[in-house]
Amino acid sequence: MIILMKKNATGEEINHVTEWITSVGYQTHLSRGVERTIIGAIGDDRGRIQLKSAAFLPGVEKVVPILKPYKLAGREFQEKDTVIQVGEVLIGGPAFTVIAGPCSIESEEQMMECGYVAKKAGAKILRGGAFKPRTSPYSFQGMEEEGLKLLKKVGERTGMPVVTEVMNTTDVDMIEEYSDILQIGARNVQNFALLKRVGLCRKPILLKRGLMTTIEELLMSAEYILSSGNGRVILCERGIRTFETATRNTLDISAVPVLKELTHLPVIIDPSHAAGHAKYIIPLTRAAVAVGADGVIVEIHPEPEKAFSDGAQSLRPEQFYRLMDEVNILEAAMRDGIGGLQ
Amino acid sequence: MIILMKKNATGEEINHVTEWITSVGYQTHLSRGVERTIIGAIGDDRGRIQLKSAAFLPGVEKVVPILKPYKLAGREFQEKDTVIQVGEVLIGGPAFTVIAGPCSIESEEQMMECGYVAKKAGAKILRGGAFKPRTSPYSFQGMEEEGLKLLKKVGERTGMPVVTEVMNTTDVDMIEEYSDILQIGARNVQNFALLKRVGLCRKPILLKRGLMTTIEELLMSAEYILSSGNGRVILCERGIRTFETATRNTLDISAVPVLKELTHLPVIIDPSHAAGHAKYIIPLTRAAVAVGADGVIVEIHPEPEKAFSDGAQSLRPEQFYRLMDEVNILEAAMRDGIGGLQ
Amino acid sequence: MIILMKKNATGEEINHVTEWITSVGYQTHLSRGVERTIIGAIGDDRGRIQLKSAAFLPGVEKVVPILKPYKLAGREFQEKDTVIQVGEVLIGGPAFTVIAGPCSIESEEQMMECGYVAKKAGAKILRGGAFKPRTSPYSFQGMEEEGLKLLKKVGERTGMPVVTEVMNTTDVDMIEEYSDILQIGARNVQNFALLKRVGLCRKPILLKRGLMTTIEELLMSAEYILSSGNGRVILCERGIRTFETATRNTLDISAVPVLKELTHLPVIIDPSHAAGHAKYIIPLTRAAVAVGADGVIVEIHPEPEKAFSDGAQSLRPEQFYRLMDEVNILEAAMRDGIGGLQ
Amino acid sequence: MIILMKKNATGEEINHVTEWITSVGYQTHLSRGVERTIIGAIGDDRGRIQLKSAAFLPGVEKVVPILKPYKLAGREFQEKDTVIQVGEVLIGGPAFTVIAGPCSIESEEQMMECGYVAKKAGAKILRGGAFKPRTSPYSFQGMEEEGLKLLKKVGERTGMPVVTEVMNTTDVDMIEEYSDILQIGARNVQNFALLKRVGLCRKPILLKRGLMTTIEELLMSAEYILSSGNGRVILCERGIRTFETATRNTLDISAVPVLKELTHLPVIIDPSHAAGHAKYIIPLTRAAVAVGADGVIVEIHPEPEKAFSDGAQSLRPEQFYRLMDEVNILEAAMRDGIGGLQ
Repeated sequence: MIILMKKNATGEEINHVTEWITSVGYQTHLSRGVERTIIGAIGDDRGRIQLKSAAFLPGVEKVVPILKPYKLAGREFQEKDTVIQVGEVLIGGPAFTVIAGPCSIESEEQMMECGYVAKKAGAKILRGGAFKPRTSPYSFQGMEEEGLKLLKKVGERTGMPVVTEVMNTTDVDMIEEYSDILQIGARNVQNFALLKRVGLCRKPILLKRGLMTTIEELLMSAEYILSSGNGRVILCERGIRTFETATRNTLDISAVPVLKELTHLPVIIDPSHAAGHAKYIIPLTRAAVAVGADGVIVEIHPEPEKAFSDGAQSLRPEQFYRLMDEVNILEAAMRDGIGGLQ
Repeated sequence: MIILMKKNATGEEINHVTEWITSVGYQTHLSRGVERTIIGAIGDDRGRIQLKSAAFLPGVEKVVPILKPYKLAGREFQEKDTVIQVGEVLIGGPAFTVIAGPCSIESEEQMMECGYVAKKAGAKILRGGAFKPRTSPYSFQGMEEEGLKLLKKVGERTGMPVVTEVMNTTDVDMIEEYSDILQIGARNVQNFALLKRVGLCRKPILLKRGLMTTIEELLMSAEYILSSGNGRVILCERGIRTFETATRNTLDISAVPVLKELTHLPVIIDPSHAAGHAKYIIPLTRAAVAVGADGVIVEIHPEPEKAFSDGAQSLRPEQFYRLMDEVNILEAAMRDGIGGLQ
Repeated sequence: MIILMKKNATGEEINHVTEWITSVGYQTHLSRGVERTIIGAIGDDRGRIQLKSAAFLPGVEKVVPILKPYKLAGREFQEKDTVIQVGEVLIGGPAFTVIAGPCSIESEEQMMECGYVAKKAGAKILRGGAFKPRTSPYSFQGMEEEGLKLLKKVGERTGMPVVTEVMNTTDVDMIEEYSDILQIGARNVQNFALLKRVGLCRKPILLKRGLMTTIEELLMSAEYILSSGNGRVILCERGIRTFETATRNTLDISAVPVLKELTHLPVIIDPSHAAGHAKYIIPLTRAAVAVGADGVIVEIHPEPEKAFSDGAQSLRPEQFYRLMDEVNILEAAMRDGIGGLQ
Repeated sequence: MIILMKKNATGEEINHVTEWITSVGYQTHLSRGVERTIIGAIGDDRGRIQLKSAAFLPGVEKVVPILKPYKLAGREFQEKDTVIQVGEVLIGGPAFTVIAGPCSIESEEQMMECGYVAKKAGAKILRGGAFKPRTSPYSFQGMEEEGLKLLKKVGERTGMPVVTEVMNTTDVDMIEEYSDILQIGARNVQNFALLKRVGLCRKPILLKRGLMTTIEELLMSAEYILSSGNGRVILCERGIRTFETATRNTLDISAVPVLKELTHLPVIIDPSHAAGHAKYIIPLTRAAVAVGADGVIVEIHPEPEKAFSDGAQSLRPEQFYRLMDEVNILEAAMRDGIGGLQ
């Protein structure tokens, strides 16, 4: 950490700061510039948070952190890409992985139809929500365990691993029994109790970025899971909240190359929640392939206008077939011409 | 809900939409303008979410919701202000309530000193964190139950009710035993499982707005608690995330008059987390009194430079005494000259 | 426009609103729902702004605009894509157009080298800044007319049309003399005097979206140019300002399909200013091709570390060659497999 | 500026960076930490922008600027508050200054009525727009020079200095003839040609912060005016753009104490444009007094429902009288109890 002193800081103030730094366990390194004195605090960063309080000492202008706050999630800790195997599917490897299914599990018939459409079109993993995080307490809250059973059944019937969201620490055991991947939703990205709990699971975790989570905070949330013992985390960019209202959220497509640089974990995109309108899903999915994401997770529904939730952003079967065709074409171009997803 | 048809929508498309609206349980009301046909969906809004799927039907340009999505939290449900009594303190009544204490409970000595400073200066409620939501898994995570015991002890010794944060449904019982008010932190504002759970408590809930939460979403989160049976919710504006980095977050001071118009629940401000720097807390607290908030919650620490968390934004005792003096002066001006907080 | 009355609005208030609407030249259409009365204002929208003042009348809850505020820029006015010809280059047609060049024109040697690299790699249009909008008055402000002469010279020598920014109405004549396309920068997107002035030019206008501009406002700024008589406007998404600091701005890639739906004007992307780091330009350019943009504008420099401005986001020649290779591969996949940019 | 090297940076890379820093005119200062090497670049910051290009060199992780980019606007340059005299009014002195008037000048009658209401209520300066920056080219664009004449006439009749907006360099001379203060609107806050031009005026400049302008950028825009020779700049916070839609913009009230710390220039607030609804103006004005602003600028109109622009956010005369009463009460409390605006 670097402590920048004010222009008119006195020698006494500078001494006080260096003594204080020493007292919290760091070494100091002084650098006097033309207009400013800068004090480096050298040491490991266990006392890091406390060090920030230096901003409070007389004569200090600001404190600038130097080291990245995450470790296990970083490329410095592991240079090679993490590839996560679920059944026979590899996420983060050379192939682009499409995860598809309905927003909410509504009935066996609906779920079965989604499963067959997803499979036939070429999706590799099936999604479906049994516990639904809804802004309104009066909205459909999901089929809960009954839904989990349907999801598992359809996954087995179609030969696809399944993923579903867990919203509460008390549900983790039950969901781990039914689902191959556990999803942490955007609203729980900093539900630290839940992050620690799924860090104890033996199943991979699909961790969605929150609407106002910085990329660094997303990696810190992943760090909670990794440091609790579960190294299999898939990161998912799903749109951030901005002033623009033409789309439900703003897909931060740049997060893919930024994350690919900073972390070894796989990175996928959720264009459905980012856009909020079915009509934008296909072009955004093409962009996901081209930018170098490891996959997408998209919502499909046999009859979107009858969906219990998120109807407006669900793809009809024929739209999803077209999406898969376009994914295949661009994936081939990336692989053959450009040397793989990157 | 209003469905706006595209300029070139055909008669057939319009018929299809009106039939679909009827099929999901609404009456329709057609209005043909010069350029557009508008279809009103009349009925109660239980099917409201499904109605949004109309955006999907051929010929529809957009769907505009009309009714507010919350009920119990709204002024239309209860016109009169809710006043919440905790011990002998009234929150949301004629007086401005100051809640103060350290970010983290660190030791009996620290907590006792904070308690005496808070009491002596004129604060009415004592705060202190025992379970800390920290971005980093490597940061101090709180003293947990031991901290709760200290908080309760100091509250009793100084004669002040206490408030502390609950982060997980499994901790609610324990925390309710020690604390007079349960706080839901900004990161859990849409942790719906937790909201439902504290809706079953008999203690008041201090609900913080999230960094990314709209005012309407905050009211929807309050609605989860209210509709689960707990009518005593205190709303807290604590800064939203914007592009500006000069302060930790951007205090949305306008949220106070907006909330006062929309809801009967008390509204307080947390200037400490909004600003992130002790030097801005006093002017922002003055603004809180003047804008008509029901109170503030501020962080104090006997020695901020030694705090385990949030040192840079904690007030020293002498700063807190000055804050209380200024609160008293402005509160008197509001009461005598302007006719009360408003 | 639709006027939504409050739940408890009286008959008298409703009458007052309908009379007022009539008085400002609209017809009214009344719709009484279960909880609310809604009043439609029917007529053309010349009085539109004044109509918003209805929000002020007693008993009114809110005013909801119905019509899009732009006309000439909309697909409803012109369904077919506008294709803009500059020299022999077509922007908005079947091919993806790459515009490249240095941020600032610095010397004949630097400009000439950029021109040859751009041409050799396959760029179609040459960019270069002569009047530079700099946050600091102490930064390099551009070579002005001398720079324009160099730009024109290099454009002619390499056989490419050129584009440069105009910042002030008084410079328009001069710049129109030297440049084939005039660029309006992000900071001037709502400099209405400048928009009206370039609306009188006979050269195409490259209009950049501002950091804070909604898609609708961007189209309204285009409408200023179109309604002043210049129909040749190229829209450019260049990143919006959000809370995320990992990139300089957040590229709003979804703006491309949204704009393609709403307007007939060509849409290009500026990944250099969006990302702010050279290392992200290539993946973002691939995403631009895949999402269906009509082109990109990128910054190149023979020696970025010596650039007078924006060095960190400029591509070296060898990086730009690789970018063009990848553009060609994806453009071919889009054309052959998917049926063109879309 | 500080250059932070990557963890695995080689000795050769470190040497290359130090040589490059020397080559652009700085001295270097090396600091080797446990995990990182940090290189300080010591010298004055004329080459500052170029120095940022160090981010581009092999082995560099990031570049951290140390010095504030503004000089003349900063407290380090001038510690004492700047007080600006206009006629007999002092802005930035011990009194809170209220500027009031209509959004647009519409007629002599309307302007005269606004002038008398403003004067009678106790406003010190009269505002009125003659050149209006409107999002739509089809909206009322202002009365232009005819409006300026009316403004001047009413200012003289009521004995108040006047302020009006200038949107284009070519209008500066004309407006300076009629108006006592020239306003730069939010959309022109980075119209650098205009900033330089008004820097040559002998009249004070009221500079509004843009919707997405950081506090630092606002100070840089002030620096343009100051460095062109005009030291009399009044800064105005008028709401920034965020995700919240309950108000037109989000008033960044914290900007007042932040600016008061960083700069000696007076700081006022525009609650009308921030809130966008008349009903919130009075509480936000109270907050402006209490937070320590030097004044407010508010919109008033004899009949807001007939206003040509911004009707919904204009105060009626009786509302404005009440606003002035409340300002007086709080100003007295601040002066007598707290020791002045601060």
